[in-house]
Amino acid sequence: MGRRDPGDRLSSLDTPSMIVDLDIMEANIARMISLLAPTGVDIRPHLKTTKSPVLAAKLIQAGCKGGCVAKVSEAEVMVDSGIDDIFITCEIVGAPKVARLIELFKRAPRLRIVVDSVPCASAINAALEAAPIPGNPQLQTLIDVNVGQNRTGVAPGEPTLVLARSISALTHLKLIGVHGYEGHLQHVHSRDERKNHCRQAMTVLSQTADLLRANHFDIKTVTTGGTGTAEFCATSRGITEVQPGSFIFMDVDYRNAVGTYFSHSLTILSTVISKPEPRRVVIDAGLKSLTTDSGYSEPKGLPGISYVDNGDEHGSLSWANEGDCGLEVGDRIEMIPSHIDPTVNLHDFYCAHRKGVIEEIWPVATRGKVQ
Amino acid sequence: MGRRDPGDRLSSLDTPSMIVDLDIMEANIARMISLLAPTGVDIRPHLKTTKSPVLAAKLIQAGCKGGCVAKVSEAEVMVDSGIDDIFITCEIVGAPKVARLIELFKRAPRLRIVVDSVPCASAINAALEAAPIPGNPQLQTLIDVNVGQNRTGVAPGEPTLVLARSISALTHLKLIGVHGYEGHLQHVHSRDERKNHCRQAMTVLSQTADLLRANHFDIKTVTTGGTGTAEFCATSRGITEVQPGSFIFMDVDYRNAVGTYFSHSLTILSTVISKPEPRRVVIDAGLKSLTTDSGYSEPKGLPGISYVDNGDEHGSLSWANEGDCGLEVGDRIEMIPSHIDPTVNLHDFYCAHRKGVIEEIWPVATRGKVQ
Repeated sequence: MGRRDPGDRLSSLDTPSMIVDLDIMEANIARMISLLAPTGVDIRPHLKTTKSPVLAAKLIQAGCKGGCVAKVSEAEVMVDSGIDDIFITCEIVGAPKVARLIELFKRAPRLRIVVDSVPCASAINAALEAAPIPGNPQLQTLIDVNVGQNRTGVAPGEPTLVLARSISALTHLKLIGVHGYEGHLQHVHSRDERKNHCRQAMTVLSQTADLLRANHFDIKTVTTGGTGTAEFCATSRGITEVQPGSFIFMDVDYRNAVGTYFSHSLTILSTVISKPEPRRVVIDAGLKSLTTDSGYSEPKGLPGISYVDNGDEHGSLSWANEGDCGLEVGDRIEMIPSHIDPTVNLHDFYCAHRKGVIEEIWPVATRGKVQ
Repeated sequence: MGRRDPGDRLSSLDTPSMIVDLDIMEANIARMISLLAPTGVDIRPHLKTTKSPVLAAKLIQAGCKGGCVAKVSEAEVMVDSGIDDIFITCEIVGAPKVARLIELFKRAPRLRIVVDSVPCASAINAALEAAPIPGNPQLQTLIDVNVGQNRTGVAPGEPTLVLARSISALTHLKLIGVHGYEGHLQHVHSRDERKNHCRQAMTVLSQTADLLRANHFDIKTVTTGGTGTAEFCATSRGITEVQPGSFIFMDVDYRNAVGTYFSHSLTILSTVISKPEPRRVVIDAGLKSLTTDSGYSEPKGLPGISYVDNGDEHGSLSWANEGDCGLEVGDRIEMIPSHIDPTVNLHDFYCAHRKGVIEEIWPVATRGKVQ
């Protein structure tokens, strides 16, 4: 398998390998905590980035409160690893998935879910009715509100109130809050523009929470935010919780938007396998190692050299200028992913190192958990 | 986990799930065999599509000869599953990977590799010299020739001959052939244009083989081709082996080029989780279930409705016309992948069904094997 034991040096790794610089990762965590701690909001990091209960535990130890996941199958892994304060941020639809949710809820009573429609909410309620859990615990439910991303979510204001009233008739669900993810704002490059649009989205969300409270709903949680907006969300009126994820590793796309307040801690170690011409080499990392949905990855520390994929297993590094690129067959390159979450999803484990010596191996435990 | 046992119906599956229609898949295999059998060339399917020793065995049983893989880590899985006539089509570079290759060669003496440079070939030879295998078997080696793809590969003609002479001095390698993949032609939409360009590339490859033979190299294998070109390669002078892979499942990108001679046998079963507006629904399949590197996937049997991803776990299906799209929360949709190989790489297993009843579950055994 190529050696990958604590104490080994990175040079002993086969490639491509996903590696994490622990010094940089720990600094990123400390920066997010110190940035947000003064605001008093909870940090419930989205674990869709790391896909690892080990890292979820490190984040909780640093001061975060539980975690978010996208899917029931991810929540199962987290709960079975002892991370049981979990918020599932995608709507749960379909009899097989609802059945899994109920089984999980039996052993994870702190679970939180979202709904954005009556069919979605009532199917879950009906399943709890049909197979009651001893003590009849209520499942903590948040309404997914569309704050401008136009993905899922009910419209803010009156439509959310109408849905809240429907949920209040479902005896197995307990409405505890609203969730509104402004995903469309995470990568707005201008900080001022990002901040202003975020403030508007947060006003929509908190006013909707206020409308529900004015109608006697006990809205405790108003949750939102990502790496690109967490600091603005956390300083907006009425927000109780933020969900950043990518800050722990960062990527090219977020760096282009957010800047270098957080640093790249994760790279894909790769090898030059061919040098077809002086200006260009081919590395062993293609679509199966680095995603392209948000642009191309970048080689670390090689200014003037750019990457494109050449299919599943190949990528080209090309030198923009005349002459030789200076890279040779056998050279090792660290690639900075363009989009961190789906890149992590391609790999089976992390090799976490400090100054080139491997300290820990972490499985990507929720990799591929799409259900 | 959502039920997925033989005898279950597809309706019992949680989503997203990768499903294969066995009737269609078997017809695709039979068509490729009957298309190429009259030519007498060997079919060595590229197993980067299916990533499954089970399917490799089915292809061999249907008349194929061994298989291709891209990486050593994939070859390990195939060999350990009894598929030992394997050709590794990517250059093998770097001490950790070469060490894995040598270990694999000890238990898979029929292994075939490619080289495109002296550093690549001599490092493998040196490793065999340093840790000789009893009986001193030679490792079957092909030269990777650039036939126009401009990815890896030495230039055809004289540069290939120069490399062949260098390899002949390496006592642990046995030069048996040339490999030239015309990947740049697979998706040329015009059949005539694809055929003509392919004929030119095959002439370059076979003339290079002839040049080596004229210089007393015993070139037995001339291997090439993919789903888009296999029939043209197989009818070109001097080609002994073709490597199609995608025909077994097909995808949108290949259908747009090759047409419907082969049919879509693989889809990603997904569920509508939200209906934010009459013309648009959101399904539970995003970047983690369907790749976007070769355009967007398509919903099966829903003309006028198109897909875009909305991040890792969401996708939108939109109706081009006015009015309601006719889809509702809870509906199930089969998505036809745009690019089959990296899509399969996102999933852990196949549910193979016949007329909606699950017959077999196949692990995606070489999923994530990027090393």
